[in-house]
Amino acid sequence: MRIALAQLNFVVGDFVENIRKSKEAIGLAKARGANLIVFPELSISAYPPQDFLEFDDFITQCYKAALEIATDCNGITGIVGLPSTNPKREGKNLFNSAFVLQEGKITDKVHKALLPNYDIFDEYRYFEPNRHFHCIEINNTKIALTICEDLWNIDDDPMYINCPMDELIREEPVLMINIAASPFDYSHAENRKDILIQNVKKYKIPLVYVNHVGAQTEIIFDGGSVALNTNGDIVKECNYFAEELSFFDFDEKTRTLKTTETKVSDANTAPQKIERIHDALLLGIRDYFHKQGFSKAILGLSGGIDSALVTVLAVRALGSENVKVLLMPSEFSSTGSVDDSLKLIHALGIHHELIPIAKVFDLFGETLSPQFNNLPFNVAEENIQARIRGVLLMAMSNKFGYILLNTSNKSEIAVGYGTLYGDMCGGISVIGDVYKTEVFELARFINKDGEIIPKEIISKAPSAELRPNQKDSDSLPSYDLLDQVLYQYIEQRKGPAELIQNGFDEALIRRILKLVNTNEYKRYQTPPILRVSPKSFGMGRRMPIVGRYLS
Amino acid sequence: MRIALAQLNFVVGDFVENIRKSKEAIGLAKARGANLIVFPELSISAYPPQDFLEFDDFITQCYKAALEIATDCNGITGIVGLPSTNPKREGKNLFNSAFVLQEGKITDKVHKALLPNYDIFDEYRYFEPNRHFHCIEINNTKIALTICEDLWNIDDDPMYINCPMDELIREEPVLMINIAASPFDYSHAENRKDILIQNVKKYKIPLVYVNHVGAQTEIIFDGGSVALNTNGDIVKECNYFAEELSFFDFDEKTRTLKTTETKVSDANTAPQKIERIHDALLLGIRDYFHKQGFSKAILGLSGGIDSALVTVLAVRALGSENVKVLLMPSEFSSTGSVDDSLKLIHALGIHHELIPIAKVFDLFGETLSPQFNNLPFNVAEENIQARIRGVLLMAMSNKFGYILLNTSNKSEIAVGYGTLYGDMCGGISVIGDVYKTEVFELARFINKDGEIIPKEIISKAPSAELRPNQKDSDSLPSYDLLDQVLYQYIEQRKGPAELIQNGFDEALIRRILKLVNTNEYKRYQTPPILRVSPKSFGMGRRMPIVGRYLS
Repeated sequence: MRIALAQLNFVVGDFVENIRKSKEAIGLAKARGANLIVFPELSISAYPPQDFLEFDDFITQCYKAALEIATDCNGITGIVGLPSTNPKREGKNLFNSAFVLQEGKITDKVHKALLPNYDIFDEYRYFEPNRHFHCIEINNTKIALTICEDLWNIDDDPMYINCPMDELIREEPVLMINIAASPFDYSHAENRKDILIQNVKKYKIPLVYVNHVGAQTEIIFDGGSVALNTNGDIVKECNYFAEELSFFDFDEKTRTLKTTETKVSDANTAPQKIERIHDALLLGIRDYFHKQGFSKAILGLSGGIDSALVTVLAVRALGSENVKVLLMPSEFSSTGSVDDSLKLIHALGIHHELIPIAKVFDLFGETLSPQFNNLPFNVAEENIQARIRGVLLMAMSNKFGYILLNTSNKSEIAVGYGTLYGDMCGGISVIGDVYKTEVFELARFINKDGEIIPKEIISKAPSAELRPNQKDSDSLPSYDLLDQVLYQYIEQRKGPAELIQNGFDEALIRRILKLVNTNEYKRYQTPPILRVSPKSFGMGRRMPIVGRYLS
Repeated sequence: MRIALAQLNFVVGDFVENIRKSKEAIGLAKARGANLIVFPELSISAYPPQDFLEFDDFITQCYKAALEIATDCNGITGIVGLPSTNPKREGKNLFNSAFVLQEGKITDKVHKALLPNYDIFDEYRYFEPNRHFHCIEINNTKIALTICEDLWNIDDDPMYINCPMDELIREEPVLMINIAASPFDYSHAENRKDILIQNVKKYKIPLVYVNHVGAQTEIIFDGGSVALNTNGDIVKECNYFAEELSFFDFDEKTRTLKTTETKVSDANTAPQKIERIHDALLLGIRDYFHKQGFSKAILGLSGGIDSALVTVLAVRALGSENVKVLLMPSEFSSTGSVDDSLKLIHALGIHHELIPIAKVFDLFGETLSPQFNNLPFNVAEENIQARIRGVLLMAMSNKFGYILLNTSNKSEIAVGYGTLYGDMCGGISVIGDVYKTEVFELARFINKDGEIIPKEIISKAPSAELRPNQKDSDSLPSYDLLDQVLYQYIEQRKGPAELIQNGFDEALIRRILKLVNTNEYKRYQTPPILRVSPKSFGMGRRMPIVGRYLS
């Protein structure tokens, strides 16, 4: 049996495009003599459709799309993913399903049993878990078909009380197929392969694993679909961050998968952490723009490393002709603010505008002088500068259709070191899940084959330049130290006692944790953040604004 | 047996205060000879603690707080709510629990079985559902103790496959107790009483139902705890929007609850829809400020009805001495913008500042003239005005510690008729869950005993006043029509086919639905919105930003 693995990039709710893309893949698979083509989880709606699942109309359209795709499934079996109606009175009204399409019809359905409901996942919000298991048959081959999380309950602290493959294996299937929407984070590709290898070793049959690829707002699916044989050998690892239609021959007698390619390149193994983050961010930017029909980006270039990095990423994702930067120096800006930025602008060959803000800042001061009444310069005046820049960037966005890229990094978002409605503006936050220390690593990665980001930008001391001689280190600990604490608190959910036990100073811990928790109100109004870590701000981390724990 | 019902207002994660408040109530209950005191669901952590539940430290603190409260439970039994550890290896690590506290110790535990995971609820994100049921015994009385949603699975389309009371009733309890955190919406009090009456009628034993009261950021708990006898008679309905410690005597022989009060006033029956919304918003504002230690609010007063209404609500919630308004007319502002506002300001006796924005607006135009290059006036210039006002309000907030109140209504938030980082700024959105037609109803309710909001403000045609002679009706259908469509689309999740079938014009429907869906990016960056309807924007409605369904 020849199996086509369709690792494709779908658009949420774009049924016309998702049907077209599915049919195109079926056509190619037929031409290559495939007996079966497998699409990822919720391929028809794209993942995650979120609360559109509460609309009957949406569910109906998904069903109609499955029927439409089925019309092309003649002489080939298709497995597609979609939400489907639970016919029982009790329980939630939907299942997260895989439909088997044969001879123009829906011939079988399998529902997901383990519904992830943590971090960015909300599946139990919509779906009833499956409790009745059966294998499917394709060309007289018995296959255990499961959906993503269904294979993930085999570690030492299982999150679910049951295990779908333990049920299915009783029917003696000869092959596992898993359709998935498994989102990227910099450590996830390894975890995923570990889990899949544990499955083939435990159940002693091969596995074809088909993952989504593409970004859906902040969530990035990295692809990296794999076929595995019983001994845990990887037959082939598909592209990361790109679509792929791959073919495998399954020999039922030997229960072995083989790729149809004569030579499998090594290029598809997952790159190292910083390169992965880099590639994920490019896909994230690209899909945010292209899936919405946007092409042009704008951002403010301050002379600092964050905006320099985002500029390079934007140029790589969208093309230098589609990126415009504004230089908006104030009276507190260093000369490097403009000079260093111009160096980067010339290196990248992008458009820029120079718009000094001193006059507007002075007029705001004059306008507010009856109220401010000679009170000393403080955070109010600092924020006015950042907000003037926000107004100018949004004015250019509104006038010319540029989308504003936000340049805040994860460290400053964590401790609230940023101005709401100022430098926190933007349609999408590019590096909001990248700690400052990782920003430096990314800059070095970008410069690995020659200087792109000027060394002056990398080596200068970080500063918001909103008052004379301001440095980040005036009010924050060193980023090396800060990022360690933030990582343990945010990613690892360690409390104050554990952090102090890990050797951090108690006063420092109390101060940082208080900053993180009292700035939840700012993060609530932050743009969506491209997620590259196992715990990003946004939908994956839900915290009260009004509360008094560690604050 | 005398039962004290403790309908109290707790603060998320404020263990010191929540313990103090619980002990105070226990002391009062003892003094009144109560044998049992019942607190609401998750009384120790307050509801919802959200992702603080992922911190071991938080769980430990909850447990310690229960032990500390238990030390006061001598001669009285306490029932408190808290998250607790699931000792089993399989499943999630926590339960949503009720602990029985007696003689200084934890003597029994009951775990929640039905975990709401829809709208604003995320309980399956954290908790394992209980599957083993037992009644508790207090003073030799067998009681079926359940937690909130556990009583809610008795309608025709049950969301869960099991029903906890069906299990518990086999042990022949003589009384039901339910501890709850059941959030307000304008129709919820009736639904809640309906469900509770169905329970006493089905199981033929009385019920003591204890609800939270108080606002937790955007979620408002309205109290309205009740005691019900077997025939469905309400023994007593507690305060709405206020704390209450109430006492009931339970006669085991007759299985009857009686209030200890000689006369129960009628005042505690739920008020009508608009009055309820009014009262809920006051509680929402008050708790947002007081639980964070803030006292002073600021907002922009435009001469329109939205900002006028929010000003009145702020004055009622915080006191006139704590509310400051800014009048920020531009060249496009009508004379009424200032005159009508001054009338309201004098009626309320609040502080104001007049800060015209024409000069700053002109300077922005001049600053951007090399880029804008005589292009015609459009949304860019409109938004600059709204954003200048945002900068001024935030500058006052930063300089003097005022918290900015957002004044956007639900209709304009729905269709994106507002400026991001302009009039969409604020710490909390007061009327973001109130449709424009309901804004008018609230204004009339406020004026019912005499004019507070000037009639000129109520009767003028709604306008953003950002260009000459602009009216909302230039670009939007009438609010009567718009709000009907929005209600059916947002609250009732009707798709285009159903809406057209309901008599709306197809082109109009397509246009409105497209506006709603393409403006998801703006709502993502909106402040938290006080929730008063069954479907509010914010955590209860989760939609993709990048997507192409109905857009």
